[in-house]
Amino acid sequence: MTDSNTLPILRLKKNEDRRIRAGHPWIFSNEVDTKKTPLTDFEAGQNIRLENSMGKPLGSAYVNPQSLICARLISSDPAIQLNKSLIVHRLGIALSLREQFFERAYYRLIFGESDGLPGLVVDRYGDILVVQISTAGMERVKSDIIDALNKVIKPQAILLRNDVTTRSMEGLTSYVETVQGEIPDTIELEENGTLFQTSLTSGQKTGWFYDQRANRAKMIKYIKGKRVLDMFSYVGAWGIQAANNGAKDVMCVDTSDRAINAIKTNAELNKVSDKVHTDSGDAFDILKTLKEQKKKFDVVILDPPAFIKRKKDIKQGTLAYQRINQLAMQVLTKDGFLISASCSYHIGAREFKNTLLHASNHVHRQLQLLEYGQQNLDHPIHPALAETEYLKAIFMRVLA
Amino acid sequence: MTDSNTLPILRLKKNEDRRIRAGHPWIFSNEVDTKKTPLTDFEAGQNIRLENSMGKPLGSAYVNPQSLICARLISSDPAIQLNKSLIVHRLGIALSLREQFFERAYYRLIFGESDGLPGLVVDRYGDILVVQISTAGMERVKSDIIDALNKVIKPQAILLRNDVTTRSMEGLTSYVETVQGEIPDTIELEENGTLFQTSLTSGQKTGWFYDQRANRAKMIKYIKGKRVLDMFSYVGAWGIQAANNGAKDVMCVDTSDRAINAIKTNAELNKVSDKVHTDSGDAFDILKTLKEQKKKFDVVILDPPAFIKRKKDIKQGTLAYQRINQLAMQVLTKDGFLISASCSYHIGAREFKNTLLHASNHVHRQLQLLEYGQQNLDHPIHPALAETEYLKAIFMRVLA
Repeated sequence: MTDSNTLPILRLKKNEDRRIRAGHPWIFSNEVDTKKTPLTDFEAGQNIRLENSMGKPLGSAYVNPQSLICARLISSDPAIQLNKSLIVHRLGIALSLREQFFERAYYRLIFGESDGLPGLVVDRYGDILVVQISTAGMERVKSDIIDALNKVIKPQAILLRNDVTTRSMEGLTSYVETVQGEIPDTIELEENGTLFQTSLTSGQKTGWFYDQRANRAKMIKYIKGKRVLDMFSYVGAWGIQAANNGAKDVMCVDTSDRAINAIKTNAELNKVSDKVHTDSGDAFDILKTLKEQKKKFDVVILDPPAFIKRKKDIKQGTLAYQRINQLAMQVLTKDGFLISASCSYHIGAREFKNTLLHASNHVHRQLQLLEYGQQNLDHPIHPALAETEYLKAIFMRVLA
Repeated sequence: MTDSNTLPILRLKKNEDRRIRAGHPWIFSNEVDTKKTPLTDFEAGQNIRLENSMGKPLGSAYVNPQSLICARLISSDPAIQLNKSLIVHRLGIALSLREQFFERAYYRLIFGESDGLPGLVVDRYGDILVVQISTAGMERVKSDIIDALNKVIKPQAILLRNDVTTRSMEGLTSYVETVQGEIPDTIELEENGTLFQTSLTSGQKTGWFYDQRANRAKMIKYIKGKRVLDMFSYVGAWGIQAANNGAKDVMCVDTSDRAINAIKTNAELNKVSDKVHTDSGDAFDILKTLKEQKKKFDVVILDPPAFIKRKKDIKQGTLAYQRINQLAMQVLTKDGFLISASCSYHIGAREFKNTLLHASNHVHRQLQLLEYGQQNLDHPIHPALAETEYLKAIFMRVLA
């Protein structure tokens, strides 16, 4: 084991330690005193000792000279380094949170920085773990992660979904690999009492969006006896749960034929095929057509993919959120409910609320905001790292 | 019925209509063109027709020349005025929302601007209604409100709790009056399956804080088998619900002896007296003593009265929130849960989160924010009126 005093040192420029001391875990490359500690001296993923400009230790971190986020803090104690025993320890703390709140072992087990393991996401599907590594620092300890997971969880199978696009910013290649056991073509899971089949190898992200679970539970009280429109339906997580919990009729819309097939399968699985209908196509086009046809729904659910993926897309993406919400408001019955989500970190809760206000003003509707939802608690928010707070769902009533 | 064209006109200065057109329902006295329409020409509470500087109608409003908020919008249609038939109409829209979400008739029925009735709050306790009027415009139509409530709800009793301090800013006196039927000394209500007795005539606000209902429901999953400390307990709404839902042991703290007695009564009512303890005194002092005595709790609940009542108190009040949260974090067991609320509108969700971060840095703890809660959905948020969004509850895990 390396002694922290023998670790290479990364030194910050003057005053650049303030954000770190306030709890933020990222170091940007322009904050480094590259005269004293050139970034080019480091290997991607290496553990380092972080110091302020005066040489006072700030903690331990791992480094990546290639990345704009050139180091990520592991501990404010420089003696604590990222290694197998630390991963085992932090996995245990993360597991105890999930075990307290979930009866069945289907949840996000590790959510990066929020669980003290930057660059690592682990989703649990019973005995199967899906691991996503997004930084060179975590890639370096990949075998320690696998060992630690086997020690703490003892899963039957482990799948690496290392095909997340942000890996390229860390100089990492994209790959999907079964490192242990066998991954079935589809797995079955239950969410809020409804059954779903999904694919872990070819599904979006790690195969399921656990982050919306609590919001979908909230939805249930809105849809009893109602006609529901579920846009961006994917495999039907919202729509099938609505149908299975008393909605009168559900229309699920997605662009992908594969998603449409999955919706049909999931409707059958829950014996609600008679009230689930599907339509395939662009969400904006379909809403426009429904509006022209004067079709009305009591509840509309909008859970689109992120319209704002990068900072430079904020203006255009915000406008897209406004437009899709305007269209949704126009296909609602009188005093109907709109459940509108955004998973773009770049649009905050306040800005998203204002976007909905603009949309309502534009189509001469009045809103009553009834509930705000966030990502489920297996995606804890790191209070100093705004990037960990990304999901917003607003439940509202749309008055004439 | 007055024709809107014959209503007195209140004219705004140039560009002062922008906020109104964006959906905000308040007019401030410095925005009025007092040369053309002097505020002194109006009686407090009078209905007016609102126009922009060019004479274009913006809607109808009621006015109060004495108040900084000199007019409150009733409708963007100048022909729609505040009168009995409008109150009946808007009561019906408000009632249909509550009836959809509440099995029993215990809820806030009217929440001011959010329900289209600025200056009016109505809380419903079964057959009893508690009405709170805070503006001259609503005071003027008091008998219409009573008539409308009798038409739509048909309550046995109506109590006017017109003792809210903000009435003085409108030039209104403070009084409590039973205008119909009889109000018992105490009433019984059920929240999330737990029974409570409270007083409608002498309790805080209208007698019960319906706004925290959903947050108290969220609490239940945090306290199973746990030792719970409930600060600012009032009649025990949090603490007794914790005891009644599986907490091992609950300590309720309040300054008022009357609250302590009510806690004991409510504990008996739910047969949980054996695990509910009380302590009376200042919250800061008691937390300091508990810390010195090294007493630890698995869950601490902080639901204080507003520490920030006016804008000028923001700095000092924010510091008070930080201090009380620091103290709470210091009496938590390892990886314990803190449920921390603020009902101060003047500290927003983002600022409150930052205050908790500062508190945790100060006492060398790491936070995982698990859930955010807001006021219950019988207190809808008006998207253009920030003042209607006041309650924040953050559920967090406090790591060593």
